Amino acid sequence: MSGDHSFILHLAATPSIVLVNTQLPENIGAAARAMMNFGLQELRLVAPREEFPNKRAYDLAAHAAPILDNARIFSTTAEAVADCKRVYASTARSREMVKTVYTPLEAAHRMADEHVSTAILFGPERTGLTNEDVSIADSIITVPTASDLSSLNIAQSVVVVAYQWFQTTCNLPLAASHLHHKSEFATKEELQGFFYHLERRLDAADFWKVAEKKPKMWMNLQNIFTRASLTEQEVRTLHGVIAALQ
Amino acid sequence: MSGDHSFILHLAATPSIVLVNTQLPENIGAAARAMMNFGLQELRLVAPREEFPNKRAYDLAAHAAPILDNARIFSTTAEAVADCKRVYASTARSREMVKTVYTPLEAAHRMADEHVSTAILFGPERTGLTNEDVSIADSIITVPTASDLSSLNIAQSVVVVAYQWFQTTCNLPLAASHLHHKSEFATKEELQGFFYHLERRLDAADFWKVAEKKPKMWMNLQNIFTRASLTEQEVRTLHGVIAALQ
Repeated sequence: MSGDHSFILHLAATPSIVLVNTQLPENIGAAARAMMNFGLQELRLVAPREEFPNKRAYDLAAHAAPILDNARIFSTTAEAVADCKRVYASTARSREMVKTVYTPLEAAHRMADEHVSTAILFGPERTGLTNEDVSIADSIITVPTASDLSSLNIAQSVVVVAYQWFQTTCNLPLAASHLHHKSEFATKEELQGFFYHLERRLDAADFWKVAEKKPKMWMNLQNIFTRASLTEQEVRTLHGVIAALQ
Repeated sequence: MSGDHSFILHLAATPSIVLVNTQLPENIGAAARAMMNFGLQELRLVAPREEFPNKRAYDLAAHAAPILDNARIFSTTAEAVADCKRVYASTARSREMVKTVYTPLEAAHRMADEHVSTAILFGPERTGLTNEDVSIADSIITVPTASDLSSLNIAQSVVVVAYQWFQTTCNLPLAASHLHHKSEFATKEELQGFFYHLERRLDAADFWKVAEKKPKMWMNLQNIFTRASLTEQEVRTLHGVIAALQ
C-alpha cells in the first residue's frame, strides 16, 4: 500500500486544516500527525492560545514535524481562509444557521468532486467554533456518533476527517493485500501429495474404524486443509508432523 | 442524529477492543473515549504497564468513564479473547505470517456480515503487537496511510477502526441533516413576494438601463436567491434590506 498512492495525492486538491484558537499544543501536534498519516500537508493556525512553535506540539507530532515547520499562523479565521474557495466547519453542536451538514464521508466525496482549494475549520477544545467562525464556512461537517453525549476531542475529529478524506480520495481497495506472495501458496499437486501421505498413514492406523464412514470423514478432513490456503512451507511442515506422529 | 441509531447498535454484535501491554494510561483513556463515541462498549486490557484503574486514563476518557469502570483485565492475550469467535490484530507492520490483511472498511463489512463475537487487538505504543499475539488473530487490520513513514498512535488507530465500524454497521446516510427544519424554508409564494418587491424597486431605480437586457439579468438575479434555499426569516430580512436601501 502506501507509496503507491502518492501520484493520486498530487492530482487531488488536498484540503488545508485550520485549527482555531487551539488551547493545547499537544492537540496541534496530534492533528499534524493525523494529517501526515493521511496525506494532508497544509496546517493553518488561527491565534493558538500558547506560543507557537511549541515543544509539546512537536513531541506529539512524531514524524509530522515538517507539517508543524510549515504551519502558517493567522490572527483571524477570515484571513486564514481568504484564498480558499470552499470552507467546511467541523462542529458537533447544531447551530441556528442555514448550512448543510455533511458527514465526513459525504464531505470527502464533495471535495473529490469539486476539486477546489478547501479549508476545514476545527474550533478550540472547550467551546468549539464560534458562530462567527461557522458563518464563514459554506457547510458543516459533523462526525456521526453513537449518542448525544458523545464528544470527540479536536485531534480525534482531525483523525476521522483526514482518514475519511484519504480513504475516499485515494479510492482504496477494500482488502489491502496478503502478507505473503501468492506464489508461496502450495500448488494443488503439493496439497494432493500431502493428502496421499496422510491418507496412507490413517489407513495404516485404522483411523476410520468403519469402512463405510471413510469417504465422508476423509472429505471433511481434506476440506480443513484446503480451506487453510496452505503455503508450500506449511505443507512441508505437515508432512513432518505426520512423520513425527508415527 | 445520534440517538436514532441506538436500535441498530443493539442488533449488531459490537466488537471488543483489546489493548495489549499499553504503556500510557492516557492512551487507554483516549481509546475509551473513541469507543464511547462510536458505540463500542467492551474494553479488555492485557497486562497494562501502569496500574489500572488510573486517574490519567479517566482524565482522557471524558464522558467514557463507564467504559473504564467496566474494563476487564487479563494477564495474557489468549485469555482476553478466549470467548471470541473472530479476532483481528491491528498492525501496520507486515509480518511473516499467512493472514489476510483488511482495511478498516473491509473489516467493518466482514464484522457486520459475520455477526459473531469479535475482538480487535491493539499493541503497545513503541513495539506494536508481538508475533505471538498476531498469531492468535484470524486476520489483520491495517489502516491505510499516505506513506510508509506514517504511523498512527494507538489511540488514533482505535479512533479510525471504531469510526469505520460505526459508519459501516449503522449504515449512516451520506448527508446528515439540515440544521433547520425543512418547515422553516420559505414557500415559493413567499419567495415570489420577495421577487415582486425587488423587481418593483429595481424598475423604479432604472436598474436595468437597457430594457432588452432585463429578462436575462432578472432571471440571473432570481437564481441567486433561489439557489440560496432561503428560510422564511431570511425572506423577511431581505424585504427589510430592500426597504432600507430605498
